[in-house]
Amino acid sequence: VTPDNPPVAAPDAFLGLDIGGTKLAAGIARADGKVLAEARAPSRALEGPDSMIRRLVALGRDAVWDARLGTTDIAAIGIGCGGPLDPERGVVLDALNNPGWVDVPIVAMVEEALGRPTFLENDANAGALAEHRYGAGRGVDDMVYLTISTGIGAGVISGGRLLHGANGNAGELGHVSVDHRGRRCRCGGIGCLEAYASGTNIAERAGMPSAEDVVAAVRRGERHATAVWSETVELLGAAIASIVNAFNPRRVVLGGGVTRAGDVLFEPVRRIALQRAMPQLAAVVDILPAALGERTGILGAVAVAVDRRA
Amino acid sequence: VTPDNPPVAAPDAFLGLDIGGTKLAAGIARADGKVLAEARAPSRALEGPDSMIRRLVALGRDAVWDARLGTTDIAAIGIGCGGPLDPERGVVLDALNNPGWVDVPIVAMVEEALGRPTFLENDANAGALAEHRYGAGRGVDDMVYLTISTGIGAGVISGGRLLHGANGNAGELGHVSVDHRGRRCRCGGIGCLEAYASGTNIAERAGMPSAEDVVAAVRRGERHATAVWSETVELLGAAIASIVNAFNPRRVVLGGGVTRAGDVLFEPVRRIALQRAMPQLAAVVDILPAALGERTGILGAVAVAVDRRA
Repeated sequence: VTPDNPPVAAPDAFLGLDIGGTKLAAGIARADGKVLAEARAPSRALEGPDSMIRRLVALGRDAVWDARLGTTDIAAIGIGCGGPLDPERGVVLDALNNPGWVDVPIVAMVEEALGRPTFLENDANAGALAEHRYGAGRGVDDMVYLTISTGIGAGVISGGRLLHGANGNAGELGHVSVDHRGRRCRCGGIGCLEAYASGTNIAERAGMPSAEDVVAAVRRGERHATAVWSETVELLGAAIASIVNAFNPRRVVLGGGVTRAGDVLFEPVRRIALQRAMPQLAAVVDILPAALGERTGILGAVAVAVDRRA
Repeated sequence: VTPDNPPVAAPDAFLGLDIGGTKLAAGIARADGKVLAEARAPSRALEGPDSMIRRLVALGRDAVWDARLGTTDIAAIGIGCGGPLDPERGVVLDALNNPGWVDVPIVAMVEEALGRPTFLENDANAGALAEHRYGAGRGVDDMVYLTISTGIGAGVISGGRLLHGANGNAGELGHVSVDHRGRRCRCGGIGCLEAYASGTNIAERAGMPSAEDVVAAVRRGERHATAVWSETVELLGAAIASIVNAFNPRRVVLGGGVTRAGDVLFEPVRRIALQRAMPQLAAVVDILPAALGERTGILGAVAVAVDRRA
């Protein structure tokens, strides 16, 4: 080591890669969540996995470049992707939102392309890790994260650890049934929360183009939209009561596009969930909006890298 | 150390104390689950906590004596008791099955009386630990235990650890709702599994004295009992599907008096649960009867001591 060659610090930069149904994202952040660079591109899901992963890797290289780093400065890479997937083997089994993604060994492909240790997690679990580390779940050991958008995903932190279950699929809380004789769900189940309260299903039940339109109609006082919305928040409250009884979390963090409805969602959901959950469990839980917004994907993938590398 | 005073091996005997609604039990077992002595007595719940704990301690001393040990040979003491309770502070907050048990510092009382480190856990969590260590959950890291008797209790092992949650009440799976507009539950919730499928509620729904009578009537082909039972197993199957989706267990272990119904319960519950759970999660789970029977209480309390002391 000479003055011209200062000692290189252990790398504290992580690359997060996020594969969504509509867009790809790459970001560089430090372990403390400070974002150094980010880049986004449309998913073009119809291209299939090979082309998408090639573009994702290119996006990752762009982010590394923008952060004025080289790939050797990257401590680890995290990938968030819709499930089901096998986080241990690093294989996407069947990404429901992206046709053609069956048994895709994405971790091996990204490690081959970028030469850094890479870890895979489903996007809702990644979001849970990010909210726990950097967002609305900071400072607690027991937290449930629900993301309510096209579908409903979730991740559970219990005793400070992400729950994985027997094959990495724990926390599929969009598929907790709220009505054993209810609507059929795309997952094959009956009466799943998602079959009522995902954006797609809210819109379908109201006969409107989107959940945003339903919320707008509720604000205008339209009767049919209001009835659909009332049922939606009741079911969401009931499901959260079950989730509170199952996991005894300190916080339930709600994110995803549907939660942009704000108070018209949080106020009744809090009231119903806390009324129905067991008193000793209701007493210690807060139901809060997610804090990371558009950065959930990138910070989620980064949090996966930070968590798994530790 | 002389030949007359052989070195004393580190103690490998544990005392388990179990407080049920109808009986008290004490047992001595080794960490591997080998039972050395056991003793039982009626609860006499109306006597209240002080008298019950005095008799429980006496029962514990009897078991120590029967195992030809002294209290100094006991490595640790575990207590299983109906919740809600605070396992960290060792206090029973409000034992639903035993009137007058409010804020009872049972761990301090037993430590004072017997002079050995003592740990408290709710009886369903204790049962989960026992089935995991000694029974139908051996060898797997992810297991859900449900005990279906007067009420429905549960305990969850995830990644090899018992889930506690924010204040020790995780795993209240009898209070996962299966029908958001269903029967009111004694917990204050609506449509809880327990409100349908506990022994008490099965009997009440069928208008018969006990769940055992309902099962006998089902075997005789009586129509009303059969209709009630069909709904019961459907709801139990639906709830287990939700539980599988939430925890992704390798095994779901069902114990408690109602499961003595045998195939007339397990066959339809397995079919319905596996049909409704998400395919990737259904593929890896077995639904099995508990293995420990009458010894669940004692071995549960012993397992608490073994687990918490480790």
